[in-house]
Formats: sequence, C-alpha cells, structure tokens
Amino acid sequence: MSTLTCYACGETVEAPAPPRCPCGEPRWYETDPAVAEFEWPVDLAAGTWAFADLLPVAPPADGLATASGGTPLVRTPALDEYAGAAVSVADEGRNPTGSFKDRGTAVGIEIALAEGADAVGTVSHGNMAMSVAAHAAAAGVECTVCVPDDISAERIRNIGRYDPRILRIDGDYGRLYYDAIEAGAERGIRFINSDSPGRVAGQKTTVLEALDQHRRRTGELPDAIVLPSSSGGHASGAYKGLSDLRAAGLIDPDAEPGAADAMPRLYLVQAAACAPIAEAAARGAETVERVEPGETIAYSIANPDPPSGTRALYGARETGGTAIFVPDDAIREAKRRLATAAGLTVEASSATSLAGARRLAREGEIDADESVVCIATGSGFKESVGDPDDVRTETVTLEAFPDAL
Amino acid sequence: MSTLTCYACGETVEAPAPPRCPCGEPRWYETDPAVAEFEWPVDLAAGTWAFADLLPVAPPADGLATASGGTPLVRTPALDEYAGAAVSVADEGRNPTGSFKDRGTAVGIEIALAEGADAVGTVSHGNMAMSVAAHAAAAGVECTVCVPDDISAERIRNIGRYDPRILRIDGDYGRLYYDAIEAGAERGIRFINSDSPGRVAGQKTTVLEALDQHRRRTGELPDAIVLPSSSGGHASGAYKGLSDLRAAGLIDPDAEPGAADAMPRLYLVQAAACAPIAEAAARGAETVERVEPGETIAYSIANPDPPSGTRALYGARETGGTAIFVPDDAIREAKRRLATAAGLTVEASSATSLAGARRLAREGEIDADESVVCIATGSGFKESVGDPDDVRTETVTLEAFPDAL
Ligand SMILES: [Zn+2]
Ligand SMILES: [Zn+2]
Repeated sequence: MSTLTCYACGETVEAPAPPRCPCGEPRWYETDPAVAEFEWPVDLAAGTWAFADLLPVAPPADGLATASGGTPLVRTPALDEYAGAAVSVADEGRNPTGSFKDRGTAVGIEIALAEGADAVGTVSHGNMAMSVAAHAAAAGVECTVCVPDDISAERIRNIGRYDPRILRIDGDYGRLYYDAIEAGAERGIRFINSDSPGRVAGQKTTVLEALDQHRRRTGELPDAIVLPSSSGGHASGAYKGLSDLRAAGLIDPDAEPGAADAMPRLYLVQAAACAPIAEAAARGAETVERVEPGETIAYSIANPDPPSGTRALYGARETGGTAIFVPDDAIREAKRRLATAAGLTVEASSATSLAGARRLAREGEIDADESVVCIATGSGFKESVGDPDDVRTETVTLEAFPDAL
Repeated sequence: MSTLTCYACGETVEAPAPPRCPCGEPRWYETDPAVAEFEWPVDLAAGTWAFADLLPVAPPADGLATASGGTPLVRTPALDEYAGAAVSVADEGRNPTGSFKDRGTAVGIEIALAEGADAVGTVSHGNMAMSVAAHAAAAGVECTVCVPDDISAERIRNIGRYDPRILRIDGDYGRLYYDAIEAGAERGIRFINSDSPGRVAGQKTTVLEALDQHRRRTGELPDAIVLPSSSGGHASGAYKGLSDLRAAGLIDPDAEPGAADAMPRLYLVQAAACAPIAEAAARGAETVERVEPGETIAYSIANPDPPSGTRALYGARETGGTAIFVPDDAIREAKRRLATAAGLTVEASSATSLAGARRLAREGEIDADESVVCIATGSGFKESVGDPDDVRTETVTLEAFPDAL
C-alpha cells in the first residue's frame, strides 16, 4: 500500500512523494487491492490499528503510537428531540491528546519513522500541534511546532506540555502551510500537516470505527454522518474510509436509502463566521475559495483557506451529503446540550456537529426516523472558550445543610 | 449479586442496605458464586460493562452510562529507565469526564436507578463531582454536589458544565461525608460517595481491564500495580477485583512470584503532605488514622481522613504490597516525564503512580526485570495545577523562517 493517487486527475505515484499532485489537489494513499479483503467487525480494542489492513504502514509495537482511537460511539436518546433524528455521538475527545488528530498523527509518524525521518514538524496552533508534539516526544524524535505570533497563553501551555520547539511566526500564517513542507524537506524535518497523506489515512479510522460500532448496535450503517470541517483533511479521510467500504463491498452504492448497507450521507459543518467549504457548497461551486475569516468560538475549525477543502466538498457530495454552516449561538447551545443532557464535554468546534444535525433536520435533509452519527472531534477540557462563565452556587453551613438539601 | 459483606467482620446483609457495617468498616458487593464462571479475555469494547458478570447490576442500554472504561494500557519503554522496571500506563483520563471515577459512577447510578432513586448527590469537589453530575445529567435525574466553600473557580467551572445544584459547605467538610448520606436518605437523595458499594464495584474494572490488556500483550499478569490512593475507594475496588480473579481461579495464590498467574502486588501511593494510609503502613498499624493535611499539587488525592483507608491498606497487604508516599518534587518530575517522554498528559495526582514506582524500585520493592502497571487516574487537561508555567518559544518572521528551522 505505497501508491499515492489524486482523486481529481487520477495521477498515480509511488510513495514517498510530495503530498500534493501537480494539478494542485492533495494526494492520498490508494487502498486497493487490499481493501477487497476487508471484513466487519474488527477488534475495536486495537484502536486506530484495528484498521491496519486499510492503512499504509504496519502497526507499532508499543508507546503512544498504539494508543489512539478505540473511542466510544455513544447512543444519546436524550438529544434526539433537539437534533430531530436518532443521534449517536462519537467522542473523539477521548484520544490521548484529546482530539481525533491522534489517529492521523499515529499513522503519519509511523510512516515518517519507516522512511527514516528523525525530526518532524507541524503548522498548527491547536489540536494538531498538541498531537504531533506528543507523538514525537513518545517516539523520541525532534519536533518543531509553528504557531501564529498572537497565539493564546492557554494554547501555548497545552502545546508546551510535550516540550517541542515552538516557533511563533510573525507574518502570513496561511502561507506557511505550504512553505513549511518545502523548507522542512530541505532541512530533514518531515512536516505532518492536516492533509499529509499519512495523516488522512489515519483519519479514515474515525468514521470506520464509528460505523463498526453502529453496526454492532443496530445491524445497520447510520443514515448520516455530521462532521465539523476545517482544513478538509478529516473530511477527506472520512470520505476515503467510506470509499474503502464501498470497494470492500460493505457499502452498496445501489442500495435503497435506509438499507442496512446504503452509503451514509456525509455532511460537513463549519462555523458561520468562517465557512469557505459551506459557501462553495451553497454556490454550487466545485472549487473552494479563500474567505475573509470572522471571529467564532469554534476557532479549531476556523480555516479560511482549507488545503483539502475542494476534496472534502467533492467527497461529501459523492455520498449524497453537502457542507453547511451554523452560527455561534447555535454552537454554544449545542455544546451546553451535550453536557447537560448527555454528560459529554466537547470543545465548541465539536458542538457544530450537533448544531449541524439540528439544522439539517429542520431543513428536511435528515428525517426524524433517520440515524445520525455526530463526530465530536475534541475534548472540552483543553480550552475555556465557550465554557460556562457563570455557575450558580449556594452557600450553606454544615448545620443548615440537611434542611438545605 | 445483591449481597453486601464486610471484609473486616464478615457480616452479610441483603442490598439495599447502608454502605457501612455496624463494625464501622465499609461494605462491598459479594461476587460469589457468579465469579467462578468468569474467564479471560473479555470484550474490551464494552468498557466497564465488559465485566458485567462481576457487577451487581445489569448493563444499561445507552447513554453516558455505557461509555466509561475501555481505556488503553500503554506499554511505555521510554519510562523504564526512570521507573526502574518495565512500565505500562493505564490512561484512565480517557474516561468521559476525564477520570477513573466514571466507572464507579456508571455502576453506582445504575444501581440507584434500579432501586428507584430519582435524585442523587455526592460530596466531592473534583473528579467525582464532575463524574456524578455528568452521569446524573445523562440519566435525567436531579443531582446535588456538595463542595467546600473555598473551592477554586476552575473546579466550579468544571463541575458546572453539567449544571447540577452546587452547595458550598461552610464548615467541617470532612464530617459531611457521613452526614450527607444520612440527610440525603431522609430526603430521597441517594449519595454516591467514594466508597459506596456500587461505586467500589465499578472501580474493580480499572484493574481488571488493565490486567486483561497486560495478559493479551505478554501472556502474563503484571508483577505490580501502583495506584494513587485518597479515600481508599478505588484501592478497595482494585483489591476486590484481584480477589475476584483469585476466586475465579485466574490468579493462583500459591504461584511462585513471577509466574504468569501470580498475584500482582498492589502498591498505594499518596502525596507526602497528606498520607494517612502510607503513615499507617509505615507504623505497621492495621487502622488508618486522620492526619493534619499539608499543601500538595496532588490535591485530588489529599484526603486526610480516608473513609476506606483501613480497607485499602488491608487489601494492599493481602497482595504483598503496601502504601507509600512521594513528595511534590517527585510528582512534578514524574508528570513532566509522562508528557515529554511518553506523550501522556495526566493530572498531578496521577503522576504519583510513576513517582511511586520509581521509589519502590529504588528501595528494592520492585525489581528491574519486573513489569509494573501505573494507574494514571485522571486527565491533565482539566486542571492547571502542576502545569508548565513557562514554555519557551522563539519568534521568527515568515522570511526568516526557513533559516530558523
Ligand atoms: Zn491531480
Ligand atoms: Zn463489619
């Protein structure tokens, strides 16, 4: 499994190769022909590596690299009325560094190590930065994290836990995404960014694992998947995972909607203030264009120029889904519902999945009797953005306590 | 499985019954005779409920109650030299509310619901408060959390996510542990505290799950388990789990040390500033006495008057282990090592497990060729105590970036 292909123009090269095709679109790992052998169910306890047969590198022996994935898909009837469908939540915050990124990083770093890299880097100031720094620390390789100069103290502290080299970039941070890969290659530093092919392969497993669990519970695949989307790397992985299942004969592209093995519709959700993929979807455009970003509490998904945006939109449409956006008020309310009705603490950007499902149901895109998997991409424990800032308490003396109860 | 027994005097009663025996010691659920049927391996994907055959209540159908456990045991060779033995870390921070408490809460709340409770409460200002509030929210029952009046804003915010009723207690918080159970019972509020029998039953699964994973990897049980200890509830569960395995014939009490099915030695670790169980161990006493607590970064385990302390020490000794303490400097250093060498972010109190293993190895209690499971009880993402407060960064312009790499 060492062939990289371009979904857009079909060009094929052998790995290692640059992450981007000459046509401008990102490459991913081809899964054929091994995919034809793939069968449900897998050994979920193996986490990300439960899907090793669909990944481009062999499972590691030990350490943090073995520890991603294996997150629960929680059926949450208490959210059904709010969402307007039968909701399950994939709690990706329960990865080692608190987000889905660990799946992609685990695979990305194993590939880098297998190809002889002894230094890695990433351009991120959030979940991906933490994830790459942690996995590099555990693998014993040098790590450089490039962040924007105006990064918050909270995020610096979270990244700094793993003691990487941190470079604050004074200038156009968006441009750095591409510059860093090139400059790093010249200096022996392998950049593992959001749409590097190894990472995208690892990110397939978020959806694959959720679908396996859904199938165990109900005997069927879900009707819809709602995924917060930023750079488009996770969404690309999700679509590639669905494609793999189709290639393995486990999804039937000709099945009636609602059939047990029908293709789940993949919906991407963005924050209204920064929604380049959703705006392209609304225009009916094939290509995602850069937007001017506004402020949003869902900062983890506020990428105004998503490097895999066009591919992500293509993938969502191929499944019968699309991309939408939700405003901050809806995100805040969904985050609160997840905690107070389902006991799940997610970061604001993750709550867009539930807010998105609600919008889709209200607009008739998802029916009340359909099952929807909301991917909660990251833990709410790492950031204070969108947290309750006014918790009501009462003070009582020990003596008055019994009567106050 | 509805019989409660007292390990100390042997008294037996049918549940529901008060959590404490007239002799003063806490009760737990008896597992016989079902335990004789128990077999390795279990379906780890079922999390806490993978051990349903050893639990006093049937698994729930859906919701947060299904979502605890299933946490990875990570083999971390990078920590072996520091610890002085072959280390694996059980990452209990990967529970829904970020700590091992969710296992006990899941079982405790299911029992409360099965017995008709429609309101629950807890006396806790940390992990247990979050866990009970989250599970109550998900189960749709009222929840009252009793905290000390001087609780930090960070902890109030974490508990407040799940919107329970929060009572700040002005007075002797230690006394409230017992008062609340009684006052709650009179008002129809079921208090699920650290050593309520249902909770202790759920807490068995931390060690049971870690041992199953250790066995899958190596074919053997570990030689030692190192567990941070506070109220003694988790430690009691750990010992009960080991007893269950012995009763099931899966641990051989007569095996030579080092044999695949020999009893793992259970070591309890406390922070030096508040170490009532370790001090009793050092005195050779059977009974744990209240101490005057000092300040420690491991505040989650700083209980000066542990309600299950005597039982916890009894259990540790029965396995050939004991209780020790470690100073804050060692805790801080172990926390840093877990992050920078193994990529694991744990709360300060959890790092006592690694610091404790190191001390035990230095004192010859654990041999260099032995395998030790360190239980990392909670996530480091929920609290800022013990975090790096000075992360080094460098600022570079986009133009200077390639040369700065
Ligand atoms: Zn191309
Ligand atoms: Zn007794």
